Amino acid sequence: MTPDELRRHGHAVVDWVADYLARVGEMPVRSTVAPGEVRAALPPHPPAHPEPFDDVMADVESIILPGITHWQSPDFFAYFPANSSGPSILGELLSAGLGVQGMMWATSPACTELETHVLDWMVELLGLPERFRSTGAGGGVIEDSASSATLCAVLAARHRAGGAERLTDLVGYASAEAHSSVQKAFTVAGLRDDQLRIVDVDDTMAMRPDHLRSLVAEDLVAGRRPFFVCTTVGTTSTMAIDPVRAVAEAVADSGIWVHVDAAMAGAAGVVPELRWVNDGLELVDSWCFDPHKWLFTNFDCDCLFVADRAALVGALSILPEYLRNAASDAGEVIDYRDWQVPLGRRFRALKLWFVIRHYGAEGLRHHVARHVELARGLADRLSSDPRFELAAPVDLNLVCFRGIKGDEATERIMAAVNDSGRALLSHTRVAGRFVIRASVGQTTTEAGNVDALWALLDAVADGKAIAPRRLEAPRTISGASS
Amino acid sequence: MTPDELRRHGHAVVDWVADYLARVGEMPVRSTVAPGEVRAALPPHPPAHPEPFDDVMADVESIILPGITHWQSPDFFAYFPANSSGPSILGELLSAGLGVQGMMWATSPACTELETHVLDWMVELLGLPERFRSTGAGGGVIEDSASSATLCAVLAARHRAGGAERLTDLVGYASAEAHSSVQKAFTVAGLRDDQLRIVDVDDTMAMRPDHLRSLVAEDLVAGRRPFFVCTTVGTTSTMAIDPVRAVAEAVADSGIWVHVDAAMAGAAGVVPELRWVNDGLELVDSWCFDPHKWLFTNFDCDCLFVADRAALVGALSILPEYLRNAASDAGEVIDYRDWQVPLGRRFRALKLWFVIRHYGAEGLRHHVARHVELARGLADRLSSDPRFELAAPVDLNLVCFRGIKGDEATERIMAAVNDSGRALLSHTRVAGRFVIRASVGQTTTEAGNVDALWALLDAVADGKAIAPRRLEAPRTISGASS
Repeated sequence: MTPDELRRHGHAVVDWVADYLARVGEMPVRSTVAPGEVRAALPPHPPAHPEPFDDVMADVESIILPGITHWQSPDFFAYFPANSSGPSILGELLSAGLGVQGMMWATSPACTELETHVLDWMVELLGLPERFRSTGAGGGVIEDSASSATLCAVLAARHRAGGAERLTDLVGYASAEAHSSVQKAFTVAGLRDDQLRIVDVDDTMAMRPDHLRSLVAEDLVAGRRPFFVCTTVGTTSTMAIDPVRAVAEAVADSGIWVHVDAAMAGAAGVVPELRWVNDGLELVDSWCFDPHKWLFTNFDCDCLFVADRAALVGALSILPEYLRNAASDAGEVIDYRDWQVPLGRRFRALKLWFVIRHYGAEGLRHHVARHVELARGLADRLSSDPRFELAAPVDLNLVCFRGIKGDEATERIMAAVNDSGRALLSHTRVAGRFVIRASVGQTTTEAGNVDALWALLDAVADGKAIAPRRLEAPRTISGASS
Repeated sequence: MTPDELRRHGHAVVDWVADYLARVGEMPVRSTVAPGEVRAALPPHPPAHPEPFDDVMADVESIILPGITHWQSPDFFAYFPANSSGPSILGELLSAGLGVQGMMWATSPACTELETHVLDWMVELLGLPERFRSTGAGGGVIEDSASSATLCAVLAARHRAGGAERLTDLVGYASAEAHSSVQKAFTVAGLRDDQLRIVDVDDTMAMRPDHLRSLVAEDLVAGRRPFFVCTTVGTTSTMAIDPVRAVAEAVADSGIWVHVDAAMAGAAGVVPELRWVNDGLELVDSWCFDPHKWLFTNFDCDCLFVADRAALVGALSILPEYLRNAASDAGEVIDYRDWQVPLGRRFRALKLWFVIRHYGAEGLRHHVARHVELARGLADRLSSDPRFELAAPVDLNLVCFRGIKGDEATERIMAAVNDSGRALLSHTRVAGRFVIRASVGQTTTEAGNVDALWALLDAVADGKAIAPRRLEAPRTISGASS
């Protein structure tokens, strides 16, 4: 494809994306395709010859689009907001266009330096402790996801505790409310299931520091080596907030690496009134949050900060001859390949830079504060309605609730909303009971969307039928198109 | 940013990218900024208020561009080709615009089904064994990189061998020419350095199956548990080809997981005459290659195929309540979150689908065959010139060579080429000696670029001064711009 063809087709794709974002609010949020339906519409064999670009885009519309669950819909309240925004999309486009490898400073200096710079900006934007700045012993790095950030934290902690040689003695801690990626990180790192100890939670589903302290004491007596604790600020299930300060104080001087998974809630720090989410961070070893969850940046963009980058680099650095270069040898630059598991990396800082400059601190604050206000408004409606009850405190942007008639009725409420295509919710279980989650944080979600969700809940709770939202054009999945 | 603003700014970014690709061949290939220079040009604090998008793009031109080493230059011969192409860039743009999470089938069915489908196409395009198709017990998945693919293979092998419970007994194998990611994967997986045994290589730097067999026998006698061997088809250093068939036969019936890292060379399979790169694959457990290296798809896009997906899923599956859904529970769909380390994933299949349809099998074959022809032409010139000698066989697209006057002279030749900005080379060491690598495979590299590289080598070998290529406009890094 020549540059001029790229220009022409690129304008068409930009127009398609702009149109998509303009009309996504009219589409059924959840895809209704059955398993295998998308594949059945694709040709069984790859094309022998080049195909016109316009044909490909026609298939995007007719085959791919019906198979999309619209995470960018303003009526998407399921799972977590997969944030995106115009500047982020264009930052990703620019990154693809430049096509640089950022594995080392030497392979494209701007890729490394913009990342370091923007992550130092982030310390200021979120009100994080100074120890996370690159100008001291710490620093930040963009990982693909909080899963990977947690894995890196586990690996750094394992390294500090003696590495593979000490592996069988190590024991780490998290509550049962911690994200599944903690268990997965332990498994990946070669730890047995019994090496992750589950700390009790209190009524708000937050970790109990006193129980952690007693587990650690027990493990020390048994000759095990406590090495890592994962606290969560904003659990996936209910947005519970572990008491980071108390946890860090409970294990102070033990050498235990304290990691904080603030994947969603960390973004709240852009609002000064919500900076209680940062309480205790000056005592921890690592902290991460996902701009791709609640800061208008498309996946993948997780920011991991460490207080001591030497432990992280020590755990992950391997330098083969074919990557040696003067700048790295002189130790005067950052090579982010040593801050992550894979070697290669895209220029992801561009999209984050674009987002920060497009919104400014003011714009980020405005949108995050608005989401919290909308969530609290929904919580007020639910808690004051006798048909519903809240299942967890609503401190930020997640509303957990259930119908008062029990699990099956609550499941039916969620199913009715989701089947309507007019909104999408997801679920969890709290103390064994089925709970609906409404996560308010999609970039374009406005008061009207939350009002409409409430109207839906109001109707389905009374068993009223809801006219489903339909695709504007007839679905055209109908066999191979090319 | 409204859809209409996205349209307007998006056209501007597409135009910038198209212009960039039109002029990148005129730019010095390697960035000449000093450490810290890019950061010094950026404002120390994040913006308090929104900034115009045009200002951001102006800074891309004046601050970012001078800090870019141009992997997309047709004169880029360093490291490996970081392939890209118009359709790939636009697939990435579309993926960012749709902004879906592909962690499970249920979270966007098209994202999963297109990936499965395109990877089945890839089996056909490359002439891979049928066991890698999703229609049997195996299947393919897109990972971010070959590093991650290797890690997944190690984890699947470790799972099959008993998991963390057996960890301290396990022992794996690779040659010293294997990519550094093998060592890194072992470290991540909790294995000690002495649990990765180094297999000898022959004169072509290929693994010796007889030595592997004797190491395995030795380990069995010592009570260790051989569990994994990584062979490489196309090593990073010199594109050496391990004898996969002989290796697989050497460990047949041992239960050892045989992985093949064909990160670069795997793409050669699009050319029927080069399908010798697939020899023995019907005997192995896993195989990966990088479309982002040599198949015109921008990073990140590694295709990992396994013969038995149950081992991979068994190693990586964790299902928390908040991700449970009917389709997954019924076992009738693929959930790719269980085929990779992170939970979240982008819609990466789009760019690969765009590339395959834009080029067709015919176009892919044409470009890959052309690169091999160009590399062999360069090798012929070098081997017939008394000032140079080849340092490794040139079977595909990598030319390893040195000057006959020794390491220092060879280093000077490379430095002179790189300092000119007219081409970029990288290096390795073979049997302790400094060797220049010329990797021919950038999407737009034509005969003229290889001719120019040869002219440069011809001149610098005789000590002639080369007028350096300069940025077309004066560099404008000159302090904070906003």
